[in-house]
Amino acid sequence: MSDKRILIIGSVAIDSIETPFGKRNSILGGSATYSSISASFFNKDVNIVAVVGRDFPKAHTSLLARRGIGLDGLEVADGKTFRWKGNYRYDLNSPRTIYTHLNVFKDFKPFVPAGLRNCPYVFLANIDPDLQDEVLSQVKGPKLVLCDTMNFWIQSKRKSLLKLMKKVDMFLMNEGEARLLSGETNLIKCAKFAMSKGARSVIIKKGEHGVLFFSKRFNCAVPAYLLETIRDPTGAGDSFAGGMMGYLSYKRKASERNLRKSLVYGSIMASFAVEDFSVRRLLGLKRRDVERRYNRFLDTTRF
Amino acid sequence: MSDKRILIIGSVAIDSIETPFGKRNSILGGSATYSSISASFFNKDVNIVAVVGRDFPKAHTSLLARRGIGLDGLEVADGKTFRWKGNYRYDLNSPRTIYTHLNVFKDFKPFVPAGLRNCPYVFLANIDPDLQDEVLSQVKGPKLVLCDTMNFWIQSKRKSLLKLMKKVDMFLMNEGEARLLSGETNLIKCAKFAMSKGARSVIIKKGEHGVLFFSKRFNCAVPAYLLETIRDPTGAGDSFAGGMMGYLSYKRKASERNLRKSLVYGSIMASFAVEDFSVRRLLGLKRRDVERRYNRFLDTTRF
Repeated sequence: MSDKRILIIGSVAIDSIETPFGKRNSILGGSATYSSISASFFNKDVNIVAVVGRDFPKAHTSLLARRGIGLDGLEVADGKTFRWKGNYRYDLNSPRTIYTHLNVFKDFKPFVPAGLRNCPYVFLANIDPDLQDEVLSQVKGPKLVLCDTMNFWIQSKRKSLLKLMKKVDMFLMNEGEARLLSGETNLIKCAKFAMSKGARSVIIKKGEHGVLFFSKRFNCAVPAYLLETIRDPTGAGDSFAGGMMGYLSYKRKASERNLRKSLVYGSIMASFAVEDFSVRRLLGLKRRDVERRYNRFLDTTRF
Repeated sequence: MSDKRILIIGSVAIDSIETPFGKRNSILGGSATYSSISASFFNKDVNIVAVVGRDFPKAHTSLLARRGIGLDGLEVADGKTFRWKGNYRYDLNSPRTIYTHLNVFKDFKPFVPAGLRNCPYVFLANIDPDLQDEVLSQVKGPKLVLCDTMNFWIQSKRKSLLKLMKKVDMFLMNEGEARLLSGETNLIKCAKFAMSKGARSVIIKKGEHGVLFFSKRFNCAVPAYLLETIRDPTGAGDSFAGGMMGYLSYKRKASERNLRKSLVYGSIMASFAVEDFSVRRLLGLKRRDVERRYNRFLDTTRF
């Protein structure tokens, strides 16, 4: 049996969120949270590297531990946990940030514990690209690296990002970020730009319109799973990434066939995540719920 | 052999269009033009009911005739042809109308020639729903009726439209129109609303994000064919409708399997239409180009 461990570096956060469908204060959030829980449906060996403050509720830590998420890399630092407050209007694709308090994240120097340095599957969730690079340099010969980013880094750390892009297998952005990075409007051109800069493959998230995958070998267009109820879009992209990495690690091979399926599993996990605030919906799921929705999805895209 | 004739009622127009990729004055346009040419790739028996003015260039009429489009229902009336001028910015989904000169369309009373009254396949392209209803009442026992509309009629002739909706098999709208009609934001809810009002099936066009099909039997989500070059989005929806009806009439049966495939063929025809101004790209196509792109599309949506 080959090693299928996943290492995720990202944020564990306390979010306060308002959407047209409700309002929640101080709920569990963060890219590492969503992606690790999502990945855990496919793989029981998911580990995170992140930092929280002394104020981080024990209940949240035990929730992650109960899910089987490896927390050896979860540092508890003096100070407060990273906090984000956001507001979604009816355009659920782009929240308005009310505040971002980096708190303990400000001085975070990610350290990958010795026991996790040879994890074959690595998800570099959205943090400073210099930190992503730093983590990557601590990992020995990973098999598959997925890297996310955001507009803030595209604008402020473009050079670091372009350097990092060459070192990862799959580069993840949303529509707006892809356009910002490339200066192109057309998404194929956006992807070509990233690939001309050394990205091996590019994944462009289009929110409720699905996701596009580009590589030299093949392209893939995945519509989003049709949902009637969306309560909170936060964490959709990270749940997507977690589902994708979870499935690929479970299959132990990023073949074309598995990659295509992983895009669908990622979309399915994102579709669950947005049905409720925080990770509530994800936590209530069984693997068979995932399979059921996966099959329903295949049915709506059978031509 | 059962009858596979298609009847299309819509506009034949002279358009002036500006997009970020160019500008053209007085080019051939109109819903009946795009949809009939698109349908003609699948079916050699496509007929239109429309009106043009005395100013309509002979070259355009012969172009349609050479394509094999039946023009018995194309009335030439005293006055000027319907003219539309529109402007697209980078958001290619919604043009700004500079002017709409209805001209001969203002007093158009559509008359279906006796020889066409038993056409089994009918596409009611976007015109006044009272006129669409009038045409439908002239047709005897059609096998399949597809009906399009636009925001203008949803606002000004809501009652007529809701009445008409019950009489057709497939009701076609774009995203914005679906939301306007239903007062809902979520597209599943929009479709449910239309179905609660008697629509047997609902097709929601999302432009570059593809198309959704809803019915009691099944739903289907079709991503758009990925294009690097879009020069003029005008006629995309009508080319979609024409391709759909063309394929369904060619198969002579609107089974679930054929319906699903027709949504893809419709999308493929739309993808060609937008690659150049007017019907230039459509006219330059061979059926094998359509099949090639259809297969490429299937490849990007294989999971």
